[in-house]
Amino acid sequence: MERSDWWKTSISDISPGVIRYHGYPVEQLIAAPEVGMATMAWLLTRGELPSVPQARLLERALVAGVDHGPQAPSIAIARMAMTCGVGINNAMASATNVLGDVHGGAGQELMEIFATILQDPRPLPETVAAEIARLRAENKYVPGFGHRFHPVDPRREPLVAAVTQAREDGVVEGRVLEAALEIERQINEGRQRPIPMNIDGATAIIYAELGFAPVLGRGLFILSRSIGALAHAWEESNSGARNKGPEHRTILPDYVGPAPRDVP
Amino acid sequence: MERSDWWKTSISDISPGVIRYHGYPVEQLIAAPEVGMATMAWLLTRGELPSVPQARLLERALVAGVDHGPQAPSIAIARMAMTCGVGINNAMASATNVLGDVHGGAGQELMEIFATILQDPRPLPETVAAEIARLRAENKYVPGFGHRFHPVDPRREPLVAAVTQAREDGVVEGRVLEAALEIERQINEGRQRPIPMNIDGATAIIYAELGFAPVLGRGLFILSRSIGALAHAWEESNSGARNKGPEHRTILPDYVGPAPRDVP
Amino acid sequence: MERSDWWKTSISDISPGVIRYHGYPVEQLIAAPEVGMATMAWLLTRGELPSVPQARLLERALVAGVDHGPQAPSIAIARMAMTCGVGINNAMASATNVLGDVHGGAGQELMEIFATILQDPRPLPETVAAEIARLRAENKYVPGFGHRFHPVDPRREPLVAAVTQAREDGVVEGRVLEAALEIERQINEGRQRPIPMNIDGATAIIYAELGFAPVLGRGLFILSRSIGALAHAWEESNSGARNKGPEHRTILPDYVGPAPRDVP
Amino acid sequence: MERSDWWKTSISDISPGVIRYHGYPVEQLIAAPEVGMATMAWLLTRGELPSVPQARLLERALVAGVDHGPQAPSIAIARMAMTCGVGINNAMASATNVLGDVHGGAGQELMEIFATILQDPRPLPETVAAEIARLRAENKYVPGFGHRFHPVDPRREPLVAAVTQAREDGVVEGRVLEAALEIERQINEGRQRPIPMNIDGATAIIYAELGFAPVLGRGLFILSRSIGALAHAWEESNSGARNKGPEHRTILPDYVGPAPRDVP
Repeated sequence: MERSDWWKTSISDISPGVIRYHGYPVEQLIAAPEVGMATMAWLLTRGELPSVPQARLLERALVAGVDHGPQAPSIAIARMAMTCGVGINNAMASATNVLGDVHGGAGQELMEIFATILQDPRPLPETVAAEIARLRAENKYVPGFGHRFHPVDPRREPLVAAVTQAREDGVVEGRVLEAALEIERQINEGRQRPIPMNIDGATAIIYAELGFAPVLGRGLFILSRSIGALAHAWEESNSGARNKGPEHRTILPDYVGPAPRDVP
Repeated sequence: MERSDWWKTSISDISPGVIRYHGYPVEQLIAAPEVGMATMAWLLTRGELPSVPQARLLERALVAGVDHGPQAPSIAIARMAMTCGVGINNAMASATNVLGDVHGGAGQELMEIFATILQDPRPLPETVAAEIARLRAENKYVPGFGHRFHPVDPRREPLVAAVTQAREDGVVEGRVLEAALEIERQINEGRQRPIPMNIDGATAIIYAELGFAPVLGRGLFILSRSIGALAHAWEESNSGARNKGPEHRTILPDYVGPAPRDVP
Repeated sequence: MERSDWWKTSISDISPGVIRYHGYPVEQLIAAPEVGMATMAWLLTRGELPSVPQARLLERALVAGVDHGPQAPSIAIARMAMTCGVGINNAMASATNVLGDVHGGAGQELMEIFATILQDPRPLPETVAAEIARLRAENKYVPGFGHRFHPVDPRREPLVAAVTQAREDGVVEGRVLEAALEIERQINEGRQRPIPMNIDGATAIIYAELGFAPVLGRGLFILSRSIGALAHAWEESNSGARNKGPEHRTILPDYVGPAPRDVP
Repeated sequence: MERSDWWKTSISDISPGVIRYHGYPVEQLIAAPEVGMATMAWLLTRGELPSVPQARLLERALVAGVDHGPQAPSIAIARMAMTCGVGINNAMASATNVLGDVHGGAGQELMEIFATILQDPRPLPETVAAEIARLRAENKYVPGFGHRFHPVDPRREPLVAAVTQAREDGVVEGRVLEAALEIERQINEGRQRPIPMNIDGATAIIYAELGFAPVLGRGLFILSRSIGALAHAWEESNSGARNKGPEHRTILPDYVGPAPRDVP
């Protein structure tokens, strides 16, 4: 066995009979009852084990994001893929692949805004007002707030409760939570129809409070949503459908191009 | 809001202000401390909540499969992708996409073999012998046993211990475990260099004991390995490499085709 | 510069200042006016340059398969992907990814049937009858025949004409064509509503007559359909839609799972 | 059959027995000998048929980009994928998926720079100097120039010759060509080791001269490179390798993380 530094890594140390993640032997991690998926996601991306309360808070966010049904492009794609004669790996990959800047990126974007706000020396209300003004000047919404059909997102309340409790228990500082609530307050000022914090916003608070980099925020959401992709791919594969299109077979797309013409 | 049965599902029930998975409200699931990623994977794919010991056993298998370093094609691909200027969703999808019949399918295949063995009325040693003979006649290895460089897979021991304990606690029946150990015994009979049960074999026992369908075995492995893909993608993105090829830039592939010739 | 045989290839010979494909210098291929995409696809996969008439016949099949609108899952997926905030590479990959055994594999399957038929020493009608009987016994349709809404596939006629002409010109032998027409004749015998040869069937004739392996038949279809994926991805990206689901936002999927219940 | 405008398109008009692309019947396009892949790529993305000389010039660029061997991440990934037990669609998709901003985006970026330069009212040398200065101030290279190991890119000469000829024949205006040559002249001024125009640069000239939008530049490159992905996937699938990693099995990645430690 030779070693090469072209693929060097600090994540896993593999040699015959040995597997360690950031130094910890895999057999001890498997045997430790308090080590779960959230712990492993933390260890592998951060290099250290979280405390048990940190892992528990992270897990709340991961549980919250697993699915939002086949109206989401990712989930519809997982289901369509299964009807095209591919493996479940392909269907899950096809779903994950579209969790891009628009479908999966709101939380990541909000985490970047949190970072900007927290580094600003001005009082919080002033900083938040400036940041909202900047976004509006660029014709952008504040990411993580508002939902196209949930007037109140049912996931907001229990997630905010979990992070509030964690702050009381000294698990997190609570500065991101405070910033998020101030954003929510300001964008709702004087409005009749409220703009509630949504799942992307509420999970971004937790990921940021726990010290994850914004890109990892998107990665964690993907881990979570992979469960929904798996479940929907599996359900669809049992339907017997073949080459399932987006709408029922009897519905054709409107054609809005040029009238029939001959090739010259 | 209209409803259409083209995308009908029993997984998630979404309406304004409401999200329920197989009937359970998302806000209760988020708030329940014993509900983690393993529980959600079970609920969404199976339709019912697992008991706490069932979820714990499942989580042992999920923890065990998170990573095996960049020599695995999936992980190398996640890292290469990040150096090509794509988002982390793309890198994670690219990794998942190749967890096909060869890279991700051994466990699934073994689960199918378990099902065959358990339905056979003959005594276990006889059934197992017949199944091994069948595979050898088709020039196939028994999937889930042997590893190209681990003489003993360090993940086997703690996983077998976990499922043995679960059998003692009445969480699982233990018939799959028994079959797996009988396979291991028979294929090692009279050998000097042992063929140990590997990660695919040991996790397949757990998934099968818990009643998962074989295809879901692969899906669960993908959930697990997604953590490694995320961590490696993130690590590589911090390296500054651009268009990272499989081997160092100074190493060109051998060319073994025709000698130089002119286009006629 | 070192060479390694881990990535050895007979396709491209790359060294500083030099690029040759199967021996032919890239600069000559670029400069040769008769060398187009079809020629390059042939050269890279087969190792030799096609004759000009061979390349022309191949190109007829490639032209025929470029698109069948957004009701096809691949094309709908390319369009959805673009609304999720990903690059055009991701959208095109997402489309290609689902061209699996069901969505992209009929031609490949038919090419395997052609190979079986052509190796059979019996008279053609007898061999074809046996093969159709075998498929029906396995409860399968003959791949490449019939279309869910085209009573006559408009691509059949010009493709069959092209291969017929090529046989008359001595470009191909015509044995596959003969077999395909015999299949079409037999499966339509005594039927009121005809089962016409479809695009998969008609292009499979050309690919097989030209000597491509069945797997390459699927690969060539993918090259062709990539043009449609690109065009639809581009069109959708100009629509301004965000997270476009399969059906209009006002249409929710039917929920068919358990009634609301509490987490125990 | 109903029509819905959720998936409306101007590309393909599909109804029973009818397929038209931007108004042209598919059967006429298949039957027209001068209509090839380049023509179809133009028609589907632009809405009109190119002239024969326009299609020929486009095809020169498409021929030039088909492959650069397995040192390119895209091609290595296509090959690795095939050893993991997936279909050729998956391997081709996995290759395409990583043709992102870094691996596939240089041409697109250069096309945007061309657009900026051509809209500038100042004399060309002045505009080009300003644009180069801007890129250098941002610590960026001019995309499309220089190659990590070709001192001269063998594809530059025949591509520049083709577009020069097209300008002489009145097929293109030649303003982009002029700008590109001025960039090449200025960045090489006073240098000992020249920075040549590379494939991304030379094909970007052609795509821009022909009026393609920058994003389509990347899309066209993907169509071209898909041929290489197909050929390499096919070649590797015939190798019998399983789970082929980036480097030979005997070479392990360097581990650079924490020393062995126990789970607390």
